[in-house]
Amino acid sequence: MSFFPNVKRIQYEGSKSKNPLAFKYYNPDELVAGKRMEDHLRFSVAFWHTFTFSGTDPFGAATMQRPWNDLSGLELAKTRVEAAFEFFEKLGVLYFAFHDRDIAPEGDTLRETNKNLDIIVAQMKDYMKMSETKLLWNTANMFTHPRFLHGAATSCNAGVFAYAAAQVKKGLEVAKELGAENYVFWGGREGYETLLNTNMKLEQDNLARFFHMALDYAKEIGFTGQFLIEPKPKEPTKHQYDFDAATTIAFLQTYGLKDHFKLNIEANHATLAGHTFQHELRVSRMHGMLGSVDANQGDLLLGWDTDEFPTDLYETTLAMYEILQNGGLGNGGLNFDARPRRSSFDTDDLFYSHIAGMDSFAKGLKVAGKLLADGVFETFINNRYRSYESGIGLDIVSGRANFHMLEEYALNNEIKNESGRLEMLRSVLNQYISQE
Amino acid sequence: MSFFPNVKRIQYEGSKSKNPLAFKYYNPDELVAGKRMEDHLRFSVAFWHTFTFSGTDPFGAATMQRPWNDLSGLELAKTRVEAAFEFFEKLGVLYFAFHDRDIAPEGDTLRETNKNLDIIVAQMKDYMKMSETKLLWNTANMFTHPRFLHGAATSCNAGVFAYAAAQVKKGLEVAKELGAENYVFWGGREGYETLLNTNMKLEQDNLARFFHMALDYAKEIGFTGQFLIEPKPKEPTKHQYDFDAATTIAFLQTYGLKDHFKLNIEANHATLAGHTFQHELRVSRMHGMLGSVDANQGDLLLGWDTDEFPTDLYETTLAMYEILQNGGLGNGGLNFDARPRRSSFDTDDLFYSHIAGMDSFAKGLKVAGKLLADGVFETFINNRYRSYESGIGLDIVSGRANFHMLEEYALNNEIKNESGRLEMLRSVLNQYISQE
Amino acid sequence: MSFFPNVKRIQYEGSKSKNPLAFKYYNPDELVAGKRMEDHLRFSVAFWHTFTFSGTDPFGAATMQRPWNDLSGLELAKTRVEAAFEFFEKLGVLYFAFHDRDIAPEGDTLRETNKNLDIIVAQMKDYMKMSETKLLWNTANMFTHPRFLHGAATSCNAGVFAYAAAQVKKGLEVAKELGAENYVFWGGREGYETLLNTNMKLEQDNLARFFHMALDYAKEIGFTGQFLIEPKPKEPTKHQYDFDAATTIAFLQTYGLKDHFKLNIEANHATLAGHTFQHELRVSRMHGMLGSVDANQGDLLLGWDTDEFPTDLYETTLAMYEILQNGGLGNGGLNFDARPRRSSFDTDDLFYSHIAGMDSFAKGLKVAGKLLADGVFETFINNRYRSYESGIGLDIVSGRANFHMLEEYALNNEIKNESGRLEMLRSVLNQYISQE
Amino acid sequence: MSFFPNVKRIQYEGSKSKNPLAFKYYNPDELVAGKRMEDHLRFSVAFWHTFTFSGTDPFGAATMQRPWNDLSGLELAKTRVEAAFEFFEKLGVLYFAFHDRDIAPEGDTLRETNKNLDIIVAQMKDYMKMSETKLLWNTANMFTHPRFLHGAATSCNAGVFAYAAAQVKKGLEVAKELGAENYVFWGGREGYETLLNTNMKLEQDNLARFFHMALDYAKEIGFTGQFLIEPKPKEPTKHQYDFDAATTIAFLQTYGLKDHFKLNIEANHATLAGHTFQHELRVSRMHGMLGSVDANQGDLLLGWDTDEFPTDLYETTLAMYEILQNGGLGNGGLNFDARPRRSSFDTDDLFYSHIAGMDSFAKGLKVAGKLLADGVFETFINNRYRSYESGIGLDIVSGRANFHMLEEYALNNEIKNESGRLEMLRSVLNQYISQE
Repeated sequence: MSFFPNVKRIQYEGSKSKNPLAFKYYNPDELVAGKRMEDHLRFSVAFWHTFTFSGTDPFGAATMQRPWNDLSGLELAKTRVEAAFEFFEKLGVLYFAFHDRDIAPEGDTLRETNKNLDIIVAQMKDYMKMSETKLLWNTANMFTHPRFLHGAATSCNAGVFAYAAAQVKKGLEVAKELGAENYVFWGGREGYETLLNTNMKLEQDNLARFFHMALDYAKEIGFTGQFLIEPKPKEPTKHQYDFDAATTIAFLQTYGLKDHFKLNIEANHATLAGHTFQHELRVSRMHGMLGSVDANQGDLLLGWDTDEFPTDLYETTLAMYEILQNGGLGNGGLNFDARPRRSSFDTDDLFYSHIAGMDSFAKGLKVAGKLLADGVFETFINNRYRSYESGIGLDIVSGRANFHMLEEYALNNEIKNESGRLEMLRSVLNQYISQE
Repeated sequence: MSFFPNVKRIQYEGSKSKNPLAFKYYNPDELVAGKRMEDHLRFSVAFWHTFTFSGTDPFGAATMQRPWNDLSGLELAKTRVEAAFEFFEKLGVLYFAFHDRDIAPEGDTLRETNKNLDIIVAQMKDYMKMSETKLLWNTANMFTHPRFLHGAATSCNAGVFAYAAAQVKKGLEVAKELGAENYVFWGGREGYETLLNTNMKLEQDNLARFFHMALDYAKEIGFTGQFLIEPKPKEPTKHQYDFDAATTIAFLQTYGLKDHFKLNIEANHATLAGHTFQHELRVSRMHGMLGSVDANQGDLLLGWDTDEFPTDLYETTLAMYEILQNGGLGNGGLNFDARPRRSSFDTDDLFYSHIAGMDSFAKGLKVAGKLLADGVFETFINNRYRSYESGIGLDIVSGRANFHMLEEYALNNEIKNESGRLEMLRSVLNQYISQE
Repeated sequence: MSFFPNVKRIQYEGSKSKNPLAFKYYNPDELVAGKRMEDHLRFSVAFWHTFTFSGTDPFGAATMQRPWNDLSGLELAKTRVEAAFEFFEKLGVLYFAFHDRDIAPEGDTLRETNKNLDIIVAQMKDYMKMSETKLLWNTANMFTHPRFLHGAATSCNAGVFAYAAAQVKKGLEVAKELGAENYVFWGGREGYETLLNTNMKLEQDNLARFFHMALDYAKEIGFTGQFLIEPKPKEPTKHQYDFDAATTIAFLQTYGLKDHFKLNIEANHATLAGHTFQHELRVSRMHGMLGSVDANQGDLLLGWDTDEFPTDLYETTLAMYEILQNGGLGNGGLNFDARPRRSSFDTDDLFYSHIAGMDSFAKGLKVAGKLLADGVFETFINNRYRSYESGIGLDIVSGRANFHMLEEYALNNEIKNESGRLEMLRSVLNQYISQE
Repeated sequence: MSFFPNVKRIQYEGSKSKNPLAFKYYNPDELVAGKRMEDHLRFSVAFWHTFTFSGTDPFGAATMQRPWNDLSGLELAKTRVEAAFEFFEKLGVLYFAFHDRDIAPEGDTLRETNKNLDIIVAQMKDYMKMSETKLLWNTANMFTHPRFLHGAATSCNAGVFAYAAAQVKKGLEVAKELGAENYVFWGGREGYETLLNTNMKLEQDNLARFFHMALDYAKEIGFTGQFLIEPKPKEPTKHQYDFDAATTIAFLQTYGLKDHFKLNIEANHATLAGHTFQHELRVSRMHGMLGSVDANQGDLLLGWDTDEFPTDLYETTLAMYEILQNGGLGNGGLNFDARPRRSSFDTDDLFYSHIAGMDSFAKGLKVAGKLLADGVFETFINNRYRSYESGIGLDIVSGRANFHMLEEYALNNEIKNESGRLEMLRSVLNQYISQE
């Protein structure tokens, strides 16, 4: 039995065909920058978008046509797992990611909920043994249920904090059980609706306490995956606490948590915060904190999180550029936190859209690899900053300079600047995108 | 003597070199969609950005290093014209565009200002005789001088209205003298700062009166170029009257002006208004009002008019797609209403940036031409709307249907929708961009 | 039995108490600008937000605690109507508004759906006889059901167009049956997700055909309420066709529909389109097309439709300022297209939030009435434009001027502008808000 | 001789008159929260906007009509100082702020520039002796001159770094000489235009080196004023390094600078970064880093820094609410980093607009003082978080809890949330604004 009978295991068929369902460009075995593409591009399928999302939006009901639409409860949950592993294999993707509530239904009590979760986790473990699929990360959904309406670890209600703790405790146990390479925190409702009713300091103190307890528990059970925080500026709350990479870093530094976390950067969250995707990757990289990527794209003319599949070749190229310069993502990967539009509702669209994303990142990797191999931008940059390699510039970066020396220099030297060549550099980027 | 001694006449040298100053990809003689590229791509240099802009911004002084920086008055004006025609020739661009005050300095009186203008227009006419260069359009700068601080044709001050009229009168005479193919209105300060002090109805009535008088005068002197209006939503005023294409069309319809104007669509203005560039081109095209294009791009993460050179291949491809479907731009062209960044301050950057724009549109034209030749999107669209070609759909579009018939139909028929395939279509677009 | 036992009929108790549940400031009998407040402020309760909305958001499940949460089907529908009329009476609001699918459940077929609707409409009619409550407007929900995923009257599927027609046909019958003062069109999904798959011209032609058929049918059945269109720029689609007031006017003019429609202006839609609420009211008023108002507010730092209760006194003051200058809203009213935040989930919040809205508009009315009575802004404006009352200005507005005369004037007259005094005017507005 | 002969020293005249030029509401001697208003509201005039700004914008030339428009060089500089001190006195404002280049002209060399500066500083010192006026802060303009086109302390050019150092060295000497209570850094061009040509890590390392050298030099010369950094997200560069409060804090923490700096929060910068003004004040306050305020407002429908005078009573109330809870601003003040619109060009507008700002903050202070005195929001908040005062909540905040205990609690306790009452709280805020 197959959930996706139209689709065979997808093969790399090169550039001749124009039917993206029949093939994908992405060739896992192709070498770029000395490694197989597959080793650079640790693609991951997001369980929630692909197997759980029904196609609702704030003005509309479910549209997604799925073979499991008539099922419910644990039967539904089990069927989705079966479909998922068929999907992973046909697509040739080696990783996946989930929230606890994506994969198993809530019961009437937390005990029952945990029992449901155990059943599905056991099923997944079996499937994982029989396949190459690995768990990139898991996380806890602490935003959908009404109990979290004022937040989870930042709720004004201590009972909710406790519930969230119980949920993450279980999540870490699941992570260990399934060999997750990372554990992610996205503070879905950790933020505020209005400052008029909010004790922001207490809420952030509590969030830090929560993270410390999570670290303690991971240590206790021997979970050694990477802890990741995913910044987002707003939505669903008016203002989220992990606004962007820099805000998250400030938080981690303030509470002595910086060494224990890395960042999971999402393209659409970056742009909602007023940054480019590349900027957020760069900031994380500068701090040694680039952990993983939620690979999607937003619509810059829309003000909400659209979670579109990534197809903008500029974005994928510059993202891979940062990732290559980071020496890769380590434990992390490129998780498609993306979903077909509500109007792309049939199962073929799940393939079309993942292939669109994979091909876009594969192309981005090739272009980025060639740009780095040719030293296109790096040569330009090194030349641009050359004044810091000798003389007064070297004094500055080596810590020998002070205001007296610098004033002396300024009083006696002419300044000559050089063009930044933004337009030329963009033109060169276009040439590489057109040619690779 | 040369203003740009580093640069020879730029040649198409194909894709081997990576130095954009040495060549451009754009090959005027290459055939696309049955015509020479040059016939599709009527590129135009914006006099103001290229020869007048000094590099100031709201926080910074002039940076642009130009051979004419030490001159002033009419000598400066004449020198810029000389440089301009050398630039046009070296770049291989056949059109240019200007505001009256770009090309000649204001005098102490309007009489003197007009005299200055006459001198430069005569000089230009001579140069145009000796070259292939033509005037795409001219316009009147009715926004820089403090007299226009409350608007020009929408000023609360009737004397300013009169001054603006005198200026456009002269502008139309210049247009006729130089054989301009169009005359453009950009209502630089036609809008408001606050409704608390604004009689919006009177201001818009006056604007319409102004346009009617301009039409009358053009007829009187026999100027037969196309009249164009350029929408922009905001900046410099809080709210401009010609917000976007639809707003401008509503205005023209309301005042009986629609048959006499077309639209000059600027990419950066489109996005400031919350639309894609393609959307504004499509709206104009649907109304038979697509007249010309100000080819630039904005930065969607910034909220002001950055007037960057167009380098985004998605934008240039989809723009050319609309333009090809429009049967071209008629009298219009692709005017580079764009300038090098303030930090790209040397004269080489003028070449780099124009070439970046020309190459991007050349590539866009090729991709769009191939997409249309292959019927990629049009076949998909025709199939998508096929239900309007027979049965109840044909009844609807042919005007035979009414609510009774339609209710009858709805009561007795099932509805089956098909996927919109947004992700697949974007993936196909990427394939064409990667291959052309 | 009562659905809201905590709350008695709300009385005006003046400014002494600070407990907004116990009273409201809004005093229906107070005179402003020569009329009772109630005659100016035709408040309307939105059935969907108040009785149907469950508190979901894109990341969260239902939160709203309602006495009818355990019911379903027609029983639920009937109970909501009972609760609604208790609510209207306790709040002292005379109007309400609904979509067809808010008030009655969809059946398995359109026939059954219509039957359900008939049952509830009959019930409502009985309640309306026993109360002062009137129907401000009704409309058809043509966006929630998956059949409308590609639009309704602009669907690529003719069967969907037919279904929408059947639904509006029924909606007009209901409007007539209940004596609705208006019938509203909000084109929930009339727009596009991507131009790559869209025939925008055909879609807009079809939309116009649809409106013409609706007008024909209203005439046929003798429904004489006002037809209203509600502009919105985006959400749920990437781009809605009725982007803003001006776009909607352009559409109506193009298709010969302008005389038959007015606009229903929503504050939050205005700001999503990049305009102030006052701007959209002014544009509509200038065209004689201000029909009704959806009274809410957005959050300008968020990019989606938050539909918050209107509490910004600047917004309510300037809205009432436009409405008073429009001579009121005619058939229209102030419909609270607003809902308590998801975190304001108990029934008391329904009262708190409506009172917040009513008080804010009552205060706005008082301030606007006083500003107009004192001629604060109008005197300033009349003086500002005085140059159009004589001399060359009078020549311009009376149609006597031409470019020759105006040039002559400009050559011989000095220009002297006066300050626009934006800051002073804002300061005066603050004084009125502080004092009224 | 007087520069502002129309205006006498402005007096508090209460609420009877409606002519804001004749009086201001702000009564320095009125007591709020136990202190004279003047002690809460340390208003400061921004030298650059009030005495230097000419009214240019990206599309327009100077409009401001000032008595000193015909002067130049040092004569102009001296005259502005004379006018400034007349202005301070007539307005009754006790503080001012300036950039080095606002007050004295650049010479041909840095030596000459410094000499010019010395002359004006001496003049200012004399005026300060004769008046109550004090210097809130000074700073260095390291963004206007073309030498700073790639940044100052983050320039790719070490010579520019040196020049900036020389300029800040001098700035600190001036600060000491004039008894400045603070020294401000606004990194006008510390950011990037494109990451394609930027070594962001080196640039930020250099910025930190620069700050350390500045601290060393201040210590050396015994300047004890507070060091302030002013965050801004973008403009003039594509992306500024001090994006917002959190980003700036992350930077200061990373480089060991946090103890030596506080933040100067500007309202318009907050909103450009996607935050409310109150949010940025709250974040700074939470970190003990709220140093001073640039009191202005932006236009949330415009995407650039408009620097309007603050007149929104919601903003001023909530700002004063945070400031009162901070125990005041210490060395800081409310600096009007604001200017009359380009169209408010006469000298009376300088008074109108400052009075608009002062009155708005005075009203805001009164409302905030009453809200705090009545415990309106604080009582609500304390009740909302009461679960952290005992039981499991107290275990959490006191550090006794761990995931085992919390799971145990969650398994055995029900969760009951309470409404957040956002709408009620906003309604109460409106009541206080209407009544105070």
